[in-house]
Formats: sequence, structure tokens, C-alpha cells
Amino acid sequence: MTQCTVQLGDRAYPIEIAAGLLGQTACFDVLADRPRLLLTDQNLARLHLPRLQATLSLPDDSCLIIPPGELQKSWDQAERLFDALLARRFARDGVLLTLGGGVIGDLGGFVAALYQRGIDFLQIPTTLLAQVDSSVGGKTAVNHPRGKNMIGAFHQPIAVVADLDTLKTLPPRELRAGVAEVIKYGLLGDAAFFAWLETHLDALLALDPAITAQTIAHCCQMKARIVAEDEREAVGGGVRALLNLGHTFGHAIETFTGYTEWLHGEAVATGMVMAADCSARLGWITPDIATRARDLIARAGLPVKPPAGMTVEGFKDLMGHDKKVAKGQLRLVLLRGLGAAVLTADFDPAALDATLAAAVA
Amino acid sequence: MTQCTVQLGDRAYPIEIAAGLLGQTACFDVLADRPRLLLTDQNLARLHLPRLQATLSLPDDSCLIIPPGELQKSWDQAERLFDALLARRFARDGVLLTLGGGVIGDLGGFVAALYQRGIDFLQIPTTLLAQVDSSVGGKTAVNHPRGKNMIGAFHQPIAVVADLDTLKTLPPRELRAGVAEVIKYGLLGDAAFFAWLETHLDALLALDPAITAQTIAHCCQMKARIVAEDEREAVGGGVRALLNLGHTFGHAIETFTGYTEWLHGEAVATGMVMAADCSARLGWITPDIATRARDLIARAGLPVKPPAGMTVEGFKDLMGHDKKVAKGQLRLVLLRGLGAAVLTADFDPAALDATLAAAVA
Repeated sequence: MTQCTVQLGDRAYPIEIAAGLLGQTACFDVLADRPRLLLTDQNLARLHLPRLQATLSLPDDSCLIIPPGELQKSWDQAERLFDALLARRFARDGVLLTLGGGVIGDLGGFVAALYQRGIDFLQIPTTLLAQVDSSVGGKTAVNHPRGKNMIGAFHQPIAVVADLDTLKTLPPRELRAGVAEVIKYGLLGDAAFFAWLETHLDALLALDPAITAQTIAHCCQMKARIVAEDEREAVGGGVRALLNLGHTFGHAIETFTGYTEWLHGEAVATGMVMAADCSARLGWITPDIATRARDLIARAGLPVKPPAGMTVEGFKDLMGHDKKVAKGQLRLVLLRGLGAAVLTADFDPAALDATLAAAVA
Repeated sequence: MTQCTVQLGDRAYPIEIAAGLLGQTACFDVLADRPRLLLTDQNLARLHLPRLQATLSLPDDSCLIIPPGELQKSWDQAERLFDALLARRFARDGVLLTLGGGVIGDLGGFVAALYQRGIDFLQIPTTLLAQVDSSVGGKTAVNHPRGKNMIGAFHQPIAVVADLDTLKTLPPRELRAGVAEVIKYGLLGDAAFFAWLETHLDALLALDPAITAQTIAHCCQMKARIVAEDEREAVGGGVRALLNLGHTFGHAIETFTGYTEWLHGEAVATGMVMAADCSARLGWITPDIATRARDLIARAGLPVKPPAGMTVEGFKDLMGHDKKVAKGQLRLVLLRGLGAAVLTADFDPAALDATLAAAVA
């Protein structure tokens, strides 16, 4: 088993990574005899819940099961969950467990952050995307019709338990969406890891056990380091903002498509292609690096162009809602090299226009 | 001008207390040239907004004005405010100002805590209750039909500006409700201050300038000290929980009356009478202290009995939702002496039953 730690002083927590963890009580020792409720969706309840219930001796009425899908990450669904917790008289000493991908983790973390002004929660991510990214770092949120993740809180879990076996039941499209975030770590901060991925992409897509474990551990270590340095994503632009490579473009795509047609990782994939394209047009990276980024993303079976119907103006309007806007200026995470991302508002807007025009052509 | 500081490391902030502050730019220097929006209600907009707009050069479309009343402290109203902020493309570098009493401060702070995962806010409390209690310490929340303040966050303001002139426009009933929280500080932790209040209550109710300033500064200093010691109200029962003297009984009254008939301070007043009564029945304080508490609360024109129609069972059911419940056990803030409150589950339930029976008789 691999374990890494997110170093956040008195809120430090472990990330456990191995196959078979849902069947092992040891990694849930942190729960002791505290009251617990579990949040998951209907798909995961079918696939993994019985095993986890047996491990944790969790009765059915301690499991909150919601429909699957990004539309559940809503203000309204959060309200229904508060009602469910209050109806069960769940108290501040309880722990909320979240079994699922990014939607369940973000929504459950959000509910835990706000319920009675904050209760503990434990993340059990079941998708590659959640295991390498969204379950680590304490970002929780729900979506707003005007923008993704616009309402949220920073609330760190007490532990993350990533069971590699859960990836075997992922639909291939979701696995690829997770690979997008894996590629992101290479592009933004680790050229050697990017090159390693160019070699091992097929093994990762085939879920080769050793390659998968190595990939997830490497990404979690990178994320843990970044989060420890800049827990709350400093407004001036701390290192954590670099994790949003591709996200400003990607969020515009997700908003345009109503959060339903594109997976988050797919939108980020196209967003990274666009960020690399813009960086190349600015002369900040060589065209060769932008091509390598696009090629690896395409090889992973991910989209490299935004959906039909998006326009340059539509993109810019949706990007104007981004959380990285400061003093009315759009800031983007762009590349100054392979593995060298920067957050900046200091770029020639003509390059962005050209990237958008080429992308929607 | 009196200034005290809430000592919270890199989140430390000043509380400014004086008459006339709404007309002075100096105490708003912290805003610099940052974007700002102001939240207030229709009553306060009429009474104080023009003056503040002039001081801050705040245009009308930067003011969000909602109806007055506790019913606005809702999940739905928070959602409408998020929509208003997003429609204005308010960014993470902005500051939300809240001009109002506890409802505006709690709601505005809640919105600031969650908007784009947290933006800065500045509290301008306009009621005695908000100036001595709710504006200091970073507790933000909205109500839930099943319980008051059940959904919330800890989010510290960047400054608190308490203009004593705003108290002159308070309805007498609201002033008295604020006096309840003032009495609370004496009862829970400062016998000398309680005795001082017995002497100066009439001057405070008449808003004698020196007595009022002294009262508010004293309460803010007590609260700042308690918050610095236990910012997030430790689940095990830190010192901050003592500020909830009277609140478990009081929240039950507020929930029973639908948050509309009783003011928060009125419910807390009756709750403190009941907490003192229960403490006396347990033999933890002399009957004389319970009588002094009841007498001072009655002299302030505050209710000392719950509303008609409440029953012992109804009380216990509503109290079971309290945030201080742990391991299924009801915990209460009770008195071990005048100025010596404790949070405890270790009391004879027969005493509580007797208190409830006597109160609803």
C-alpha cells in the first residue's frame, strides 16, 4: 500500500492507495466508534456498497443514495441532504463518508463543510479523476447555472481511501476523462512525468496494476505538495491556481453544454489543448510542445476541440465568470515550457482570440 | 474611539466602536480600491444607507437590498444573492459589506464564506445584539426548517465597524433583545459585570452614550478573547460553547414560533432564565442567583417564560436537534455560579424535566 500525507498542520491527513481497500478495516480506523453516514450514487451503490457496508458494519439506513450525474451537484440537492442529516439527528461528532467520483466528493464535502458549520468527512474516491485530483485538497462545491463550482468551501477530509479495484468498473469514457487530469500534472509541473506518460499511456488505459498505482501515487504526491503550499488558492495567484490548467476554457465548455454532455475531464482535455495552443501563439512554448500535448490527449481518446455551436464571443462571455478573474481582468493558466505553467493576465489578447477562433472554426 | 482586536493570527481583525463611524472614511481604509458590494435590508437602507454610500462613494447598483426579518436568513435567499453577485461578475478580490443586524450579518457572512469558495467581508452591525455578539467571531449561517443556524460556516470578517449612532434608530423591542446578550456575558463569565449591569441597566436602556460605549466595548473584549481561544467551537466543548448560554432552550422557542414571533434575544432571555432555574434545581447555584438573573432580565423588559402552547415533550424534541448534541446526549450550558458557566451532559435529567414543566405551566 502507498500512503502519502497532505501536510496541513493540525488538519494533515493521509491518502491511502492500494487495491482491495474497501474490504479492509484498517484504513477506516480513524472512524473509531463515531456515528457515520455514507453518501453515494445509485451506480456505485450497486457496484461497491455491499462490500463497504460489510467492512464498516454500516446499516442500510445510514446510506444516502442519490441519482448519478453532475446535475446532482446542486444547491437543491445539498438542501435535500441537509434535510436527511437533520432528520437522522446527525450530530457534530459524526463523520460523513463519500463513496464516488468528483460529483459525490464535491457535493458530500460541501454538505460536510456547512452542516452545523462543519463536520468531519472521509473521501472514498472511485474514479481515476477523483483519485488523482478532486478527492485531495479540500475543494468542495456545487454548481450554479451561471458557472461551475461557483458556490463552495475549503474543507479538508480526515482521510482519503483510494481503492484501485474500483477503477475496474469505470466506464471507459470516465477512465479517459481521469487520464486528462493525469496528463495535466505532467504538463503543468513535471516534464519527466509527461514523457513517462507518453511511454506508458497504453498500459494506464489498460489499467496495468503497477502502472496505475504508480500514476495515482505520483499525482497525489504532486497535489499534496501543491495543496500544502497554498491551501486556499491565494487570490493573488498562488501555486494552487496552476492546477486549473485547461479549466477556464473547460468550464466555459461545461457551462455551454449544461454540465451534461461533456465530462469534466473531457472539457479540461480540450481546455489544455487550447491553453497550449495559446501559449505557442504567444511564443512562450515551441509549437512542438503544443503538438505533443494535443497528441497525447488525442491518443487517450479525449476531445481536442470544443463542441459545435460555440463562438469566440460565447467563449469569452462564459470565461468572464471564471473565479480567476481579478480586477476585471481575465487570468489564464498558460505554459512557459513543458512542465512550467504560470497564472497570468499579462498576455496579448490577440493570441487568445486566435486560439478561440481556431478552436471553434 | 475604542478599538479591540480579535487575535486570530493571519486572520486577526479590528473591531472599531464609536459614534459617527458611518460618516468616517478612516475605518474603511482596509477596503483600499477593491471592488465592493453592500448587503442591507429595506429598513436600514432608508435609515443609514445614504450616509454610508456618501462615505464610500458607493453607487446604487452596488447595493443589494432585501426585505427585513429572520425569514430572509434562508437557503433560498442565499441562492438569490449568489445569483446577484454572479450577475455583477463580482470576483474573488471583491469585498462584501454587510450593514444590518444579526440576520444581515449572518446571511451576508454565509454568502461571503461560500461565494467562489470564500471572499472577504466587512461587518457593519447596526443593532445592539449584533454589535455585542453576532458580528464578532465569524459564525455565519442560514436557518433550516428543522433548526436555526443549522447550515453555516466559520468565516471571519476583515473588520467590524460598530457605529453607536445606529442604535438610536432601533425599535425599543430590538434594543431590549440586545440587552439579553449583554446580560449573558455577565451571567456566563463575569460576575462583576453582571453586578455593574444591575446598577446601570436603566442608563443602558436609555442609551446613555458613555454607558453604552462601555458596555459594547466590554462585551466585544470578552467575545474576542473567547473566540481567539476557541475559534471553531471545538466539538468536545471548548470555551466558545459557553456563549450559547440560554440558546438551546431559546432555539427551541424560536423553532416552535417559526422564527417570526420572538426575537432571538427574547428567546435567549427566556432560555437563560430556564438555564439558571435548572442550575438552581441541580443545586449548582443558590436560588438567589437564579432570582437575580430572572429579575435583571425582567427589568430589561424581556420575557421570562416560553410562549403558550409549548409542552415539555415539544421542548425536548426541538432541543434534540441542537448542535451541542454529542453521542446522542443533550448537552446544556448551565451555571456553576454567577459568572461561571459550564457545558455539560452530566446533569440529573429530572432537574431539566422540572424546569421545563415549571416553565410551560
